[in-house]
Amino acid sequence: MNKRIIIDCDPGIDDAMAIIMAASHVSDLRIEAITTVSGNVGVDKNTKNALRICDLIGLHDVPVAMGANRPLVRQQLVASDVHGKSGLDGTALPEEPVKKLADEHAVDVLVEKLMASEGDITLVAIGPLTNIALAIRKEPRIILKIREIALMGGGTYGNRTPAAEFNIYADAEAARMVFESGVAIAMFGLDVTHQALATLDKPDELKGIGNPVATAVSDMIAFYSGAYQGKFAGAALHDPCPVAYLIDPSMFELEHIRVDVETKGEFTYGMTVVDFKGVTDRNPNVQFARKLDQDKFWKLFMETIKSY
Amino acid sequence: MNKRIIIDCDPGIDDAMAIIMAASHVSDLRIEAITTVSGNVGVDKNTKNALRICDLIGLHDVPVAMGANRPLVRQQLVASDVHGKSGLDGTALPEEPVKKLADEHAVDVLVEKLMASEGDITLVAIGPLTNIALAIRKEPRIILKIREIALMGGGTYGNRTPAAEFNIYADAEAARMVFESGVAIAMFGLDVTHQALATLDKPDELKGIGNPVATAVSDMIAFYSGAYQGKFAGAALHDPCPVAYLIDPSMFELEHIRVDVETKGEFTYGMTVVDFKGVTDRNPNVQFARKLDQDKFWKLFMETIKSY
Amino acid sequence: MNKRIIIDCDPGIDDAMAIIMAASHVSDLRIEAITTVSGNVGVDKNTKNALRICDLIGLHDVPVAMGANRPLVRQQLVASDVHGKSGLDGTALPEEPVKKLADEHAVDVLVEKLMASEGDITLVAIGPLTNIALAIRKEPRIILKIREIALMGGGTYGNRTPAAEFNIYADAEAARMVFESGVAIAMFGLDVTHQALATLDKPDELKGIGNPVATAVSDMIAFYSGAYQGKFAGAALHDPCPVAYLIDPSMFELEHIRVDVETKGEFTYGMTVVDFKGVTDRNPNVQFARKLDQDKFWKLFMETIKSY
Amino acid sequence: MNKRIIIDCDPGIDDAMAIIMAASHVSDLRIEAITTVSGNVGVDKNTKNALRICDLIGLHDVPVAMGANRPLVRQQLVASDVHGKSGLDGTALPEEPVKKLADEHAVDVLVEKLMASEGDITLVAIGPLTNIALAIRKEPRIILKIREIALMGGGTYGNRTPAAEFNIYADAEAARMVFESGVAIAMFGLDVTHQALATLDKPDELKGIGNPVATAVSDMIAFYSGAYQGKFAGAALHDPCPVAYLIDPSMFELEHIRVDVETKGEFTYGMTVVDFKGVTDRNPNVQFARKLDQDKFWKLFMETIKSY
Ligand SMILES: [Ca+2]
Ligand SMILES: [Ca+2]
Ligand SMILES: [Ca+2]
Ligand SMILES: [Ca+2]
Repeated sequence: MNKRIIIDCDPGIDDAMAIIMAASHVSDLRIEAITTVSGNVGVDKNTKNALRICDLIGLHDVPVAMGANRPLVRQQLVASDVHGKSGLDGTALPEEPVKKLADEHAVDVLVEKLMASEGDITLVAIGPLTNIALAIRKEPRIILKIREIALMGGGTYGNRTPAAEFNIYADAEAARMVFESGVAIAMFGLDVTHQALATLDKPDELKGIGNPVATAVSDMIAFYSGAYQGKFAGAALHDPCPVAYLIDPSMFELEHIRVDVETKGEFTYGMTVVDFKGVTDRNPNVQFARKLDQDKFWKLFMETIKSY
Repeated sequence: MNKRIIIDCDPGIDDAMAIIMAASHVSDLRIEAITTVSGNVGVDKNTKNALRICDLIGLHDVPVAMGANRPLVRQQLVASDVHGKSGLDGTALPEEPVKKLADEHAVDVLVEKLMASEGDITLVAIGPLTNIALAIRKEPRIILKIREIALMGGGTYGNRTPAAEFNIYADAEAARMVFESGVAIAMFGLDVTHQALATLDKPDELKGIGNPVATAVSDMIAFYSGAYQGKFAGAALHDPCPVAYLIDPSMFELEHIRVDVETKGEFTYGMTVVDFKGVTDRNPNVQFARKLDQDKFWKLFMETIKSY
Repeated sequence: MNKRIIIDCDPGIDDAMAIIMAASHVSDLRIEAITTVSGNVGVDKNTKNALRICDLIGLHDVPVAMGANRPLVRQQLVASDVHGKSGLDGTALPEEPVKKLADEHAVDVLVEKLMASEGDITLVAIGPLTNIALAIRKEPRIILKIREIALMGGGTYGNRTPAAEFNIYADAEAARMVFESGVAIAMFGLDVTHQALATLDKPDELKGIGNPVATAVSDMIAFYSGAYQGKFAGAALHDPCPVAYLIDPSMFELEHIRVDVETKGEFTYGMTVVDFKGVTDRNPNVQFARKLDQDKFWKLFMETIKSY
Repeated sequence: MNKRIIIDCDPGIDDAMAIIMAASHVSDLRIEAITTVSGNVGVDKNTKNALRICDLIGLHDVPVAMGANRPLVRQQLVASDVHGKSGLDGTALPEEPVKKLADEHAVDVLVEKLMASEGDITLVAIGPLTNIALAIRKEPRIILKIREIALMGGGTYGNRTPAAEFNIYADAEAARMVFESGVAIAMFGLDVTHQALATLDKPDELKGIGNPVATAVSDMIAFYSGAYQGKFAGAALHDPCPVAYLIDPSMFELEHIRVDVETKGEFTYGMTVVDFKGVTDRNPNVQFARKLDQDKFWKLFMETIKSY
């Protein structure tokens, strides 16, 4: 039986790949909705990009709903340096999507789908956690309905600051609300997503596959690797990690552990503080992914692209 | 022409009096809805109390909608030491209300009423600002629709801590979101609400009026004064202040000034930092009430009670 | 019998006036030493100014010792906008002092004088509290030796930020160390020092006195009023307040109260949080000056200047 | 030619081993002084322990000077859970030392030795950094005199909290002052000191050596391993690391990198924020030790003990 998921995202190049991976594994995952949030670029662009990706892979039946246009408390931050001005630079996708946006607000979609469920919906959270935090506070009963949140964010080091990763840094207060909510969380932070590294030969290998999805993904990775060049040895496919976990958990080593989100620090705002040594007596609240089986991951990734 | 208002509250004894005052001035104010929030006591009790007050004064047509059951980021805080265990101790009101709760969530009521309006709705915010912060982030277009927020909160000193007043302290992050939103704010903090002091002779004077509302209000003030005894010379009628302002702004002296909400401080979390000396170059964002004409206030208050 | 004092200062125009006032009241106060600290301008200039003032008033026997050249933790801040580039602009004093600096470090002078005393030395602290904090931590036994610290700093509002006064803001960590040390503190903050206001007629009145000290003080106040113009209605003589208190305590109303120094806040760093309402259960640690008898103050001030 | 060093410490079991190692390598290091600071236990006990260790190894000519009895700003913290009530539990050393304490204060010893030097003195800092911070602020000219500070502290994870190591956590403000001072720093944090792990066979191996120092060290490690048991797989010899580095730098891999000390965070107070990815543009200020050649380390350690 397949898992029902809602993907809350800010596409973003790696968000696009996460959606593409989730959509191709129909025997494992059923996408109930895609909700968008301000993050890599503004929510308008992120939403348009979500629709463009749906057009590319023929995801006609899944509603795409737009959510929060800025973080809860902190000033807004964008990452167009990494994902390009459109948030999805490097591809030859049509600029304007054919697919239409849903009328409902992302927060309402989250609340309604979850409240109507039997507790069997997993959230795949691959942008800042603003929408999910808003949904939890507006309708706290969804806390008992969420099966799990598989999220990309945080880590024991950062990429936006030495201590903070982009998704958490972009709305640390929202992240804190989610991490302290009591919901089951599987966390894919930089420690593990940097193991999902698209080496510089990957664009060519993908291009060789020949289908339109493969071409688009090849272009995106090529652009993304360029953006990352000099800092990292390739392009980390952050957002596909939680999707890969839902398809095949066996490729990750996880540890049940306490993680807190710093919202007050001068050098550490947006850091996920991970208690590997069991130093605090606060209860474990996160399944923290430490290790990725890279062979399994790339096998899955390539199969995904070939399936289109 | 009268002003349309939505009262966002956490009744609470002084909230009750604010509702009673607003409802009696039908030529000045039209209550579109009452929304409730966690604060003085939990949101369940606050909501029941709102319904009980509507029963008392015959406010049958105004929807009462329940909102957030806890603050956004910080841990929950209640003030049952001041308002009694029920939040409305001291009265002989029936425990269970007759009036029914609306189906909609407070945040949806706020968003829908505001989006359907022509920018002519004023919010009377007399509890923690959680609902309004959620509404603003979920639907930022309401920022342009809100005519003004007349709120009770903050001041240049505190009552929960030396620096922080209860409503702001109870959800400082929400308060910060509202104060930085760009919405017009008229702020009635402790500096001015402590001028709306029900002296110890007031309960007897009220009881003499003889109608059931007068009796209930007399009982509430008597209880409230008891709770406050020793700390203040009487009971401050905090929440009626913004309502009185909407009925007769001439009884207040206001100053257009910068106010920021501290969310990081060790001794100052939840403080409203007021820039009387023009020391910062941040733009004024608040009409700050400094002085109350006490004669006008009590004349209005007594007329209100007699009108029932 | 007269009180023995050490003046820890950052002259500074009002520091100069505090020294002038203290030195002229030989029947009340005996200045054991003057120690200098980074503040209004750098410690080099502050120290030179202290020596220049000693030259002006013939204070040949009092050692002047130089102290810390920057705050403990925070980055350095100067106030040359108020006191001029030299820290003592507006006067015709010779630029280079005749008097020589003591060899000892300010912190060593504080420790040695206090340890050698019988607990009868009062510190007059009219700059940032860096030296005193260093002395207390290096030699904690002086805590029991200090009779009292009469300090200018803080208040219920600020002049550097809406919440923080210059002396505390310039080294809030040092201030916190002093306020939490257990030493008896008499605090003269902006609430009371703004009552020691040199109105715009004061320079002419002083000039009329005719002696060289009167002329210099007249020039300083004239410059200082100019600097303050537009923000305040005259020039507040901050630093003379604690000296006036030691000469005649009857001109101040004081309240024994809890004061904490905020070191973490975003909008409140360097604020003195005053608990007028008795909201915290932390012990009172400060005699907080609320009210000044202005007639007594100006009588004392004018007598001081005439005495030269 | 040998290096001149001053050891600033809070003995403490691993401090004792650091002193023992430094003292035995007379051809490499010359100990100019030992200064003590509040840390593992109170400064009185730490100082007595320093003297006891000097008695044990015959370090008669090196002055031991006592320093700060508490951290600068934060409340005091001790670690007697790890080092026993005396700070040096587990050994049969005489309780009362024969060696006498120097008259000078630790801060004065640091300042005087450094100012009299030709910039050739290295500080070995293996306790909280209170003394060094005090010395730097009291006499900033020593900043140009210190050759290097080789310190044990911090790391990319903590032992007192999930984010903070004991020495930094015990006085984060002092640590911040040192890390921002411009002095050359070689930092030996938990990442590397946990590689200097005394496995559970080490006490017996040491006992076999047979001299009194070996016996004492064996007892101390046995006690220390017991204290650590369950949390770590043996006892980390933290404090000997910077000493080993000064004797043979080739056993460490170091990286020149930016490290900042968090003093404001809720979950991260006292964390050393290490910028491995070059995310900030703040200048590198630390040689951060990442890797230890464990064979070289244990060879050196055993030779040290045998040399007695
Ligand atoms: Ca993303
Ligand atoms: Ca209320
Ligand atoms: Ca001064
Ligand atoms: Ca140590």
